[in-house]
Amino acid sequence: MTERTKYLLAEDDIPTTWYNLRADLADAPSHLHPGTGRPVTVEDLVPIMPRALAEQELTGEREVEIPEPVRRLYALWRPSPLFRARGLERSLDTPARLYYKYEGVSPVGSHKPNTAVAQAHYNKEAGARRLATETGAGQWGSSLSFAGALFDLQVQVYMVKVSYHQKPHRRLLMQTYGGRCVASPSEETEAGRRVLAEDPDCAGSLGIAVSEAVELAMADPLTNYAPGSVLNHVLLHQTVIGQEAIAQMALADDYPDVVVGCAGGGSNLGGLAFPFLGAGFAGGPRVRVVAAEPAACPTLSRGRLALDFGDAAGLTPLLRMHTLGHSYVPPPLHAGGLRYHGMAPLVSAAVEAGLVEAVALEQSACFAAGVAFARAEGLVPAPESAHAVEAAIREALRCKEEGRAETILFGLSGFGHFDLSAYEAHLSGALHDAPYDRAGVAAALAALPRPGRG
Amino acid sequence: MTERTKYLLAEDDIPTTWYNLRADLADAPSHLHPGTGRPVTVEDLVPIMPRALAEQELTGEREVEIPEPVRRLYALWRPSPLFRARGLERSLDTPARLYYKYEGVSPVGSHKPNTAVAQAHYNKEAGARRLATETGAGQWGSSLSFAGALFDLQVQVYMVKVSYHQKPHRRLLMQTYGGRCVASPSEETEAGRRVLAEDPDCAGSLGIAVSEAVELAMADPLTNYAPGSVLNHVLLHQTVIGQEAIAQMALADDYPDVVVGCAGGGSNLGGLAFPFLGAGFAGGPRVRVVAAEPAACPTLSRGRLALDFGDAAGLTPLLRMHTLGHSYVPPPLHAGGLRYHGMAPLVSAAVEAGLVEAVALEQSACFAAGVAFARAEGLVPAPESAHAVEAAIREALRCKEEGRAETILFGLSGFGHFDLSAYEAHLSGALHDAPYDRAGVAAALAALPRPGRG
Repeated sequence: MTERTKYLLAEDDIPTTWYNLRADLADAPSHLHPGTGRPVTVEDLVPIMPRALAEQELTGEREVEIPEPVRRLYALWRPSPLFRARGLERSLDTPARLYYKYEGVSPVGSHKPNTAVAQAHYNKEAGARRLATETGAGQWGSSLSFAGALFDLQVQVYMVKVSYHQKPHRRLLMQTYGGRCVASPSEETEAGRRVLAEDPDCAGSLGIAVSEAVELAMADPLTNYAPGSVLNHVLLHQTVIGQEAIAQMALADDYPDVVVGCAGGGSNLGGLAFPFLGAGFAGGPRVRVVAAEPAACPTLSRGRLALDFGDAAGLTPLLRMHTLGHSYVPPPLHAGGLRYHGMAPLVSAAVEAGLVEAVALEQSACFAAGVAFARAEGLVPAPESAHAVEAAIREALRCKEEGRAETILFGLSGFGHFDLSAYEAHLSGALHDAPYDRAGVAAALAALPRPGRG
Repeated sequence: MTERTKYLLAEDDIPTTWYNLRADLADAPSHLHPGTGRPVTVEDLVPIMPRALAEQELTGEREVEIPEPVRRLYALWRPSPLFRARGLERSLDTPARLYYKYEGVSPVGSHKPNTAVAQAHYNKEAGARRLATETGAGQWGSSLSFAGALFDLQVQVYMVKVSYHQKPHRRLLMQTYGGRCVASPSEETEAGRRVLAEDPDCAGSLGIAVSEAVELAMADPLTNYAPGSVLNHVLLHQTVIGQEAIAQMALADDYPDVVVGCAGGGSNLGGLAFPFLGAGFAGGPRVRVVAAEPAACPTLSRGRLALDFGDAAGLTPLLRMHTLGHSYVPPPLHAGGLRYHGMAPLVSAAVEAGLVEAVALEQSACFAAGVAFARAEGLVPAPESAHAVEAAIREALRCKEEGRAETILFGLSGFGHFDLSAYEAHLSGALHDAPYDRAGVAAALAALPRPGRG
């Protein structure tokens, strides 16, 4: 082990391909057409996304080449640094070695631009004029607005209403980049109006916001839908994170026993962990992968593996995933990026294959971990990332109890600069844990779609 | 010229010494004791700062070694990246080559931690328990709170009242790090109470906040004063910026004709530009240095070179600097970090020596430049940094007019994530330029101190 604090790579070390876990899974899931119950084809997808991305969504190739213009834009913030968390190790007095891969160095402060610039690139090439999307905490909406500005594409963001009001600064960031942001459910789409008719005070959900964005994309030939997570091609784009991390762990002359990431839709976890799983498939060491999710929205811990819609209105293909039911509206959470009823099919499949385990964490414990991390390491984590910090701390304390010097790598997916009001609520004792809504989930699971009978 | 977007250095490339411009100036300014009119000594300073920093304040050595623990902490974010601003070049259609050195990668998003961790280190070594300081926009207060957390030092911040209310998130950031922040003028100090007695609605100023912090440090032997700018040792610590930039320009196989930085107290400009001036003194190419300051607080453009206090109450030594008068309270500005009545003595001396020129810019032009930069390069600049962007754009447009392919390097001292309300005001047309207060400055200049007669 070397004695460094930070492991850097050069611009030339930005990966040249994305890694596709699908190629290594024995039982790779397909998306199904809700009407026919048959696997979705590229032609089914091209009405709302460029052909290149539709092909990436369905491909079984193990490596997909990263276009040179995308790599050049990646260079605005990539390779991102990997840190040894020496301050946190000291404060925990653990024999474990802790590392974190920090994606907050991107212009908007999260991992989301890794796919935003790729999607904007392919959409620009395909002649799209506008991108429509959902956003929870605003990480994705601001990332797509950033990418839209670079490619001169209009961006329309449906932002989950509770976050729209909790996090006005992420909305302002979108507007500074020239993006247009409305609170979801909105009056601008049929999907939004239908929800508001039933519940005018609906706090919104990622599922509802996806419906609004997909509806807009379906209605306008020059508008495409740009997903922020869940879908295969989004996770594919995020694998630059884990590929860099593997190279950086080699610089540290170390290798993780455990890889930890927070998981909402699954793109952050997949981006960091899948390349390590791929290295394992290629004969390298096996790692444990831990998905940290909110106790109030525990898709992997308490959801059912089923075919379900990615959105609330049922406009998307059916995805084989762990789900709490697409009609479920999760309770308000400060980690809005983790507030999603489902989980990426590839992450779900990896869980089924025993490659990924899940842990469900209370919000208050995660904010406490975030403060401890900020004071030990200097960076204030986003509430989503604080879930990964808390899960990593638990692993480090387990190592202390067991007297094991394991190596733990966790993803710090973004910074918490736009979440300081939530930190203030935590520090002042005003932040409470959201309870798990057993009845709401049960009702939503009872309403799961039945493929082929739509 | 290479074709890269970003020029990175390795952790080992973090400078090992700070560069002291004072050694190269023929007529280096001294601070004077206000009572005796004689040059300040180390013993005069040790009541409020560690001996090591007092010595750095007065040293004539050209290089000062950076302690290894400070270099290790620098590695949390240093070396910072240097970018070629290709997007901005394209949008301006200029033959000039534009580069920017980006300090927003630090944990708090500005250049300020470069001196914060150094000062915290020396204070911890000297046995201090608490640091007291002023802050304008909150960049410095959050940086010192960050450094205090790493060294287990208490931090007390007096934040200029107008910024305290305009920028609540920077205050929350300080609190997340464990710092204590009060609005200045406060009721907690004699200096604050005196101002409030005269004007209960006083918006505050950096000069008043400095008085409060210095008063606290003078009253408590375990509390030291930690300045965020202006003083020699603060500018010294910031020279890591320019030293790295010189190495990065070499990687780009290029060298600046013009170096541009925003200037409030002067530490950002000095940190970037002084090493280039030093290289010139050592036989290297000469560069033009442009200080971008606000038109509403134009210390260099309209101030007088005089002996003046660094604070409003007259508790500091007399500094030979360009000043609008220590009793002057500048109008509210979103670039709170530039809202200071004086200018670092070393920057003032460099202006006198013809090494630095100044340009005064309106707030609205700077926000327009900030938006243009965000949409072309992806980063939203702090309002302070937007002054440098606007000045660099003017240089690039001059090059276009003159058909000259000059190389322009500017400092992007921090990000604007906590300043998005100001961007919103700009985008919605609600932001107005603050007028230059000729009468207020004239009155303050008439009240300049007369050394040796206090």
